[in-house]
Amino acid sequence: MKVLISIDSFKGSITSSKGSEAIAIGIREAYPGAEIITLPLADGGEGTVDALVHALSGRWIEKAVTGPLHEKVTASYGISGDGKTAMIEVAAACGLPLIPQHLLNPMEATSYGVGELIADAMEKGCRHFIIGLGGSATNDAGVGMLQALGYRFLDMQNKDVGLGGTALAGIYKMNSDDVNPILRDCTFQVACDVNNPLYGVEGAAYIFGPQKGATETMVQELDHGLKHFAEIVSNELGINVQNIAGAGAAGGLGAAFSGFLQADLQSGIELVLEVIDLEEHMQGADFIITGEGMLDSQTSMGKAPIGVAALANKHGIPVIALAGSVKRDNFNLNETVFTSCFSIINTPMSLDDAMDSDVTFANLTFTASQLFRLIKASKA
Amino acid sequence: MKVLISIDSFKGSITSSKGSEAIAIGIREAYPGAEIITLPLADGGEGTVDALVHALSGRWIEKAVTGPLHEKVTASYGISGDGKTAMIEVAAACGLPLIPQHLLNPMEATSYGVGELIADAMEKGCRHFIIGLGGSATNDAGVGMLQALGYRFLDMQNKDVGLGGTALAGIYKMNSDDVNPILRDCTFQVACDVNNPLYGVEGAAYIFGPQKGATETMVQELDHGLKHFAEIVSNELGINVQNIAGAGAAGGLGAAFSGFLQADLQSGIELVLEVIDLEEHMQGADFIITGEGMLDSQTSMGKAPIGVAALANKHGIPVIALAGSVKRDNFNLNETVFTSCFSIINTPMSLDDAMDSDVTFANLTFTASQLFRLIKASKA
Repeated sequence: MKVLISIDSFKGSITSSKGSEAIAIGIREAYPGAEIITLPLADGGEGTVDALVHALSGRWIEKAVTGPLHEKVTASYGISGDGKTAMIEVAAACGLPLIPQHLLNPMEATSYGVGELIADAMEKGCRHFIIGLGGSATNDAGVGMLQALGYRFLDMQNKDVGLGGTALAGIYKMNSDDVNPILRDCTFQVACDVNNPLYGVEGAAYIFGPQKGATETMVQELDHGLKHFAEIVSNELGINVQNIAGAGAAGGLGAAFSGFLQADLQSGIELVLEVIDLEEHMQGADFIITGEGMLDSQTSMGKAPIGVAALANKHGIPVIALAGSVKRDNFNLNETVFTSCFSIINTPMSLDDAMDSDVTFANLTFTASQLFRLIKASKA
Repeated sequence: MKVLISIDSFKGSITSSKGSEAIAIGIREAYPGAEIITLPLADGGEGTVDALVHALSGRWIEKAVTGPLHEKVTASYGISGDGKTAMIEVAAACGLPLIPQHLLNPMEATSYGVGELIADAMEKGCRHFIIGLGGSATNDAGVGMLQALGYRFLDMQNKDVGLGGTALAGIYKMNSDDVNPILRDCTFQVACDVNNPLYGVEGAAYIFGPQKGATETMVQELDHGLKHFAEIVSNELGINVQNIAGAGAAGGLGAAFSGFLQADLQSGIELVLEVIDLEEHMQGADFIITGEGMLDSQTSMGKAPIGVAALANKHGIPVIALAGSVKRDNFNLNETVFTSCFSIINTPMSLDDAMDSDVTFANLTFTASQLFRLIKASKA
């Protein structure tokens, strides 16, 4: 019996790795000699870098960098066990949680710290970068990040334009003479789950500006800056960043990664499955266990398990989904995706009780043991 | 795929037959051509006769009889499809629910109506009787029932002693001249889940008297009557009814059935499994589904499913238990009994919500479909 366990975290209850451990114990109650492979899963959102650091036997690095409002902050990022890949969540250096709600200000907020993290990792020998976009407090088109990497953005007086969304409109020309040449050897893989263009009514400022503290006037000003930036990039580099799907992600960091750093923008789950090399690891598996706190075919919940299942289906491997909650209404996940889905809840209980990590651990173990006892009986 | 479904009712939520229907729908989602046999299950308690009437393709008969407090009540009993077997719950004719709490009085309460039901069924051609003890409001040693069947219990003045627990102490002799001779051709199978003797500190009056409204003085008087009755029976029939296990059930009806009607007293679940002929029906089944509202190895819950599983184990057939609630603490049902156990709860919810019959129906169908999809994948 070979089983691959690849579950997302049960958010607010148990991590992917702890949950996998619980399931493995259950499987071994039925199949003591089972070969069990565990690959931590994530959907590109919160917790993704953590899952990847685990998957790549990596370690965490702490680095003091420029925070979103230009103050020093300590940001963490991961480096893979082989030292070649850095894993960075942009929010670690310029995320919304770093700023008290009433101080949010995308006119000033900069992505400079993201560039510092990249530079630090380059210095440590990393040449491949896995980036999680999302949760940024900035609207600077990634100009701050590029500045930290040596790009210069100059105004008509040939002076640096400074930091924040407010600086974009003043850019007159660019200069890349000071960019570390090693950057050209680096590859970027970016997890991005929005398709917004850089500017316009569907762009970064209009769609995400308000939640970053932008007033109506600021939104217009920021949008104008993004548009101006796109024109400069178009003139100087011959690249149209506006229409890259996801250019508007993370206040335009999508445009900077894509236009300047030749990044691949992928959906988070696609990136995760590629990085953990799920398809390779599932070869020869008799069953795949996936899961998440909630499975619901109608919402974005279950994205990661559905990604796992799609690969499993391709290889004809049965895939069992475990969840705290299986939303059964209009359930259509079976025919398209999962062999079967089970809630691990063992008795009527409140959501609070169900989310207790000890309860979840015990429920995962119990459900897995019961399922693999059944599988064993079915095979007999 | 041949599946035998034999679940107890999910008490307060869904009947055995409705729940079985839900499970069958789920199985057919995975195995549209499955051969599915449904046998309603019960544990000898409330609902047992109902399950047996279904199992024996029976019908319900209504009959006006003497109620516990000598008033007329309408009682129902079942007759099997072949017309040969009557199924009677003694509580239908002399049960606690027939009397308002404040009128409970075991000195007066009689089991006479039970005898009238038996006589009615005999008249309709029944020669085998399945009796559910339990829930009676009487403490008359079944003398009322026997009186209705023609037995006479006479005092020293050769007059009938009358009805109720109070009459026992006055019995001087018995007479069976008026008993319908057909009664000798009748067989009685009695479901009885208590082992109490007829009288004494573990007897009917001391243990069950108080819940039937007996004061401390009444308990002593009733106990004295039961003891006196046992002596009369011993003298006249040479039978020691005192020590028959269950003689004290249903206010001494156990003694009457056993001593006068040569009844077999069996545990409820044993009787049910025998009557529904579960062992015969499970031949050739690939899986057996059993279940109940709550599975708990520590209490009497789950008695019926455990009985099903014991037979399944004997024949090496995998048995899946479904329950609203699987009490996991100190769970030891697996190794001894079930192949696997699953709660049908699909999400954290209150007990009230979980017990809604539509919710239970949907949860049973969904869980069964997921399990049989997994079984199918396991066999592939």
